[in-house]
Amino acid sequence: MVKTIKGIAASDGIATAEAYLLVQPDLSFTKKSVSDADAEVSRLKDAIKTSDDELTKIRDIAKESLGDEEAQVFDAHKMILADPEFTGAVEQEVKDQSVNAEQALHDVSENFISIFEGMTDNPYMQERAADVRDVTKRVMAHLLDVNLPNPALIDHDVVVVAHDLTPSDTAQLNSYVKGFITDIGGRTAHSAIMARSLELPAVVGTDTITKDVKEGDTVIVDGLNGAAIVNPSDEDVKHYNELAKNFADEKAEWEKLKNEASVTADGKHFDIAANIGTPDDLQGVIDNGAEGIGLYRTEFLYMQSESLPTEEDQFKAYKKVLEGMKGKPVVVRTMDIGGDKHLPYLPLPEEMNPFLGYRAIRISLDRQEIFRTQLRALLRASAFGNLRIMFPMIGTLQEFRDAKKVFTEEKAKLVADGVKVSDDIQLGMMMEVPAAAVLADQFAKEVDFFSIGTNDLIQYTMAADRGNEHVSYLYQPYNPSILRLIKHVIESAHKEGKWAGMCGEAAGDNTMLPLLLSMGLDEYSMSATSVLRVRSLMKKLSTKDLATLADRAVNESITNEDNKKLVEEYLNK
Amino acid sequence: MVKTIKGIAASDGIATAEAYLLVQPDLSFTKKSVSDADAEVSRLKDAIKTSDDELTKIRDIAKESLGDEEAQVFDAHKMILADPEFTGAVEQEVKDQSVNAEQALHDVSENFISIFEGMTDNPYMQERAADVRDVTKRVMAHLLDVNLPNPALIDHDVVVVAHDLTPSDTAQLNSYVKGFITDIGGRTAHSAIMARSLELPAVVGTDTITKDVKEGDTVIVDGLNGAAIVNPSDEDVKHYNELAKNFADEKAEWEKLKNEASVTADGKHFDIAANIGTPDDLQGVIDNGAEGIGLYRTEFLYMQSESLPTEEDQFKAYKKVLEGMKGKPVVVRTMDIGGDKHLPYLPLPEEMNPFLGYRAIRISLDRQEIFRTQLRALLRASAFGNLRIMFPMIGTLQEFRDAKKVFTEEKAKLVADGVKVSDDIQLGMMMEVPAAAVLADQFAKEVDFFSIGTNDLIQYTMAADRGNEHVSYLYQPYNPSILRLIKHVIESAHKEGKWAGMCGEAAGDNTMLPLLLSMGLDEYSMSATSVLRVRSLMKKLSTKDLATLADRAVNESITNEDNKKLVEEYLNK
Repeated sequence: MVKTIKGIAASDGIATAEAYLLVQPDLSFTKKSVSDADAEVSRLKDAIKTSDDELTKIRDIAKESLGDEEAQVFDAHKMILADPEFTGAVEQEVKDQSVNAEQALHDVSENFISIFEGMTDNPYMQERAADVRDVTKRVMAHLLDVNLPNPALIDHDVVVVAHDLTPSDTAQLNSYVKGFITDIGGRTAHSAIMARSLELPAVVGTDTITKDVKEGDTVIVDGLNGAAIVNPSDEDVKHYNELAKNFADEKAEWEKLKNEASVTADGKHFDIAANIGTPDDLQGVIDNGAEGIGLYRTEFLYMQSESLPTEEDQFKAYKKVLEGMKGKPVVVRTMDIGGDKHLPYLPLPEEMNPFLGYRAIRISLDRQEIFRTQLRALLRASAFGNLRIMFPMIGTLQEFRDAKKVFTEEKAKLVADGVKVSDDIQLGMMMEVPAAAVLADQFAKEVDFFSIGTNDLIQYTMAADRGNEHVSYLYQPYNPSILRLIKHVIESAHKEGKWAGMCGEAAGDNTMLPLLLSMGLDEYSMSATSVLRVRSLMKKLSTKDLATLADRAVNESITNEDNKKLVEEYLNK
Repeated sequence: MVKTIKGIAASDGIATAEAYLLVQPDLSFTKKSVSDADAEVSRLKDAIKTSDDELTKIRDIAKESLGDEEAQVFDAHKMILADPEFTGAVEQEVKDQSVNAEQALHDVSENFISIFEGMTDNPYMQERAADVRDVTKRVMAHLLDVNLPNPALIDHDVVVVAHDLTPSDTAQLNSYVKGFITDIGGRTAHSAIMARSLELPAVVGTDTITKDVKEGDTVIVDGLNGAAIVNPSDEDVKHYNELAKNFADEKAEWEKLKNEASVTADGKHFDIAANIGTPDDLQGVIDNGAEGIGLYRTEFLYMQSESLPTEEDQFKAYKKVLEGMKGKPVVVRTMDIGGDKHLPYLPLPEEMNPFLGYRAIRISLDRQEIFRTQLRALLRASAFGNLRIMFPMIGTLQEFRDAKKVFTEEKAKLVADGVKVSDDIQLGMMMEVPAAAVLADQFAKEVDFFSIGTNDLIQYTMAADRGNEHVSYLYQPYNPSILRLIKHVIESAHKEGKWAGMCGEAAGDNTMLPLLLSMGLDEYSMSATSVLRVRSLMKKLSTKDLATLADRAVNESITNEDNKKLVEEYLNK
């Protein structure tokens, strides 16, 4: 029977393929006495052998697609299976206790896990507990003859169906995966962001997809409209193939805009820039013809490191990005650690509400040695391109002044030492704390630019954690309160002759674009893969037609839905 | 040497007395071999005897001042000391191992604690682990001859000095305590709120007071200016005695205003109301001549209960308050659970950021059976006084509409059943989510009134947890962004002929009052003990003089400090 399940459109595109359920199987079992212990041991050995073969395959695939480091974990799993201390103990337990292999495996592995976890002064050994748990799961699945998902082994086209996708899940997906559908999550969830960067159609937040779909069902992911169609009729398939073709045609059209500027139908130019996390993302930025980098998230540099990155390491990364962009503007955001991002080597206080806590500029101004190192690296790199710096989580003008003071001091030191630094570095701030947005007119007098961070601005303004599914209905980008704050930020910047950009998810959103153009937002920074789509839509819109749209959205509309409708009506007229 | 330590003025008044350090002593010890085990056992027995005598005294005092239930914990402690399984084991350990009593006590008690804590399926026995820990501490202190604070035994005037005061610490303070000073906390910390309700001068957030003061030092708490003077000179004492006398005179003057209305120097009337948590707080409201109850926090009814309070229990509580207020308005806030307030019998989801999570109206609209019970109890009680209802944490107009719909449905059912309910119940909302404050003009068309909750409004607008000491510098009530939002809320209400009140800490703040009067805030709801002070200050202020103050505060001022200065200059001119 055809079923249509509604969800949130998280990543554009349409795909039709067999469903692959990435869900944990039921590994429960009953304890049994066995009379023929040898037969039971041989059953155990078979399961171990099958598991080992599987791990070899997974390791080889992981090595090829992800590199040696990522593949090591599977070698660790294989070593456990080869360790007589472990597998021998399970065999012995079968014989000594005359129990089934499942029970013996469970008992021995629990014992190992509790010993490893008890080694609180040895984090390395503690991590081994997780390995034992993973390996045990695999052997248990083979003993019980149930299917344990091995996404790395997928060898034909599939649509992945999961409750949620963690970063390590997505890291294992190969090119046979044509799209995915999840129970939970919203447009800003990790899985949604990954889908867009991999250019895979995705629908999230369906609530029930893992229950609605069986392994092997045919599924259509409609990432354009946020729907999943299970066991579609021939007519459905035909309809969606058409949609998919139209979408492919559209993408081909977008491709042609790669080397064009971003202009509206009435010839107004705006900047479409891209967000990056590491210098490795540069290629995508260039391939998609972005007119600059609107957000370089430097915290990845800190998160991928084993200790605080040195000034030299940072300098190299910043220089590479600035040179790669060949004079196009690069907006670097200083370290945004804290909240949900932690560094193993920089212990932060335990907090009840980390999103309302010690994070970003609050840490930088408090731990100035870290901040000064980053600013020196940036200043030195500034000689190699068009650098702009912005500070995250600025809430008061005092904080901006303090940050600017540190910058000015480090610059003076470098200049005194004869180091070449640019004399034209714009200093701006993220607009994400409501207090700052309310006072944008005051801030505009002292900063060079604003970049609106909608993810956090919405979360704080609505007082709703963007990662908390119980309050996800309050994540409302088109709520008139949010739009009023954005409008105030943009108008305040313009009044002082400054520019305003946006680097949150909303900057690449089709519904948001007409509203932002109507408000005169200057720069739109998004996933590199969204640049051409937005450039194409921009080309069809005229700022003249849009003139009154924003006023209606912030004054006449009352709800998020009102504004969705307002824009849809405008786009379809 | 005289030392002056600056802190945050948390509760009015001045007190001079001996310092009493409510800090955990150093209970570390060295393991020693003993040759005379009998002598060591007798030393142990002495320590146990002294501890037991002390516990008897504490229990008796606790029984008298707090009641049987609170005193039971000390009986539990005495039982442990009387239990040969415990104390006998310690004696045996001294003899068997020839170790000092400290080591024996430590080993035996650790053993007991780990056994109790291991009983994960028996919460009662798990709690006994804490009792063993407490008793061990007491005996250890006597063995080491160090001072373990026993606040219940204080028998002469003291100023309590502590790192922080927990609810259970403050519950033990008796009438010899003349004030307190803490290292951490702000004006909205639990300790600060307790101090104001006990009318004890208090200074919090000194950072270092526990290091600056020794037991028995003379200390002056200056709760008016936020300072502690350690070992004051005769001159200091004289000066502060004068200040204290002036303050006492001032309080006597305030007393005279008890039966007067709250009016400004130019004859404008405003309402000064009080905040309550339970019907027991009624007497304080009446004694201080409040003109109504501006906030009845009903969650206490839920928190003091073992299960969800029934409609009948709630009805009785609400009726008592409404009748007690004899027709004066009573604003009841529906259940504000979640965030930092939990009910043992209502499990809530684990959340990363509970202040941005599932709380207050978000729970009520989701778990409607709880909400409907509360509304029915309120509706039935409405026949007995002047009831107004407000919903906490409203962020969107849809939420207000949904809540109002539930109210209207329950009202219709009661009316159909022939139950008498008032036909004149105002329905309002807390203004504490920034999104709602930004759209106050839209909300004002549909609600009967606003009550501004500054504690949460500041926390969300500044994106800083008000309980987190690492970001406490961002708790800025006078920040122009906060004042702009407040001003917008008040003006929006007035434009639609509605009224606006405030029930956060700021409503009773001397610096805030001129600003709020300048904006025309209609109702000021605060701790009952603040009512007469604010009424007195109001009498000295003229709304005509104040006309432009708010405009300057939101347009010319840039920082929180700017506005403090602005008001001080105004008050001193």
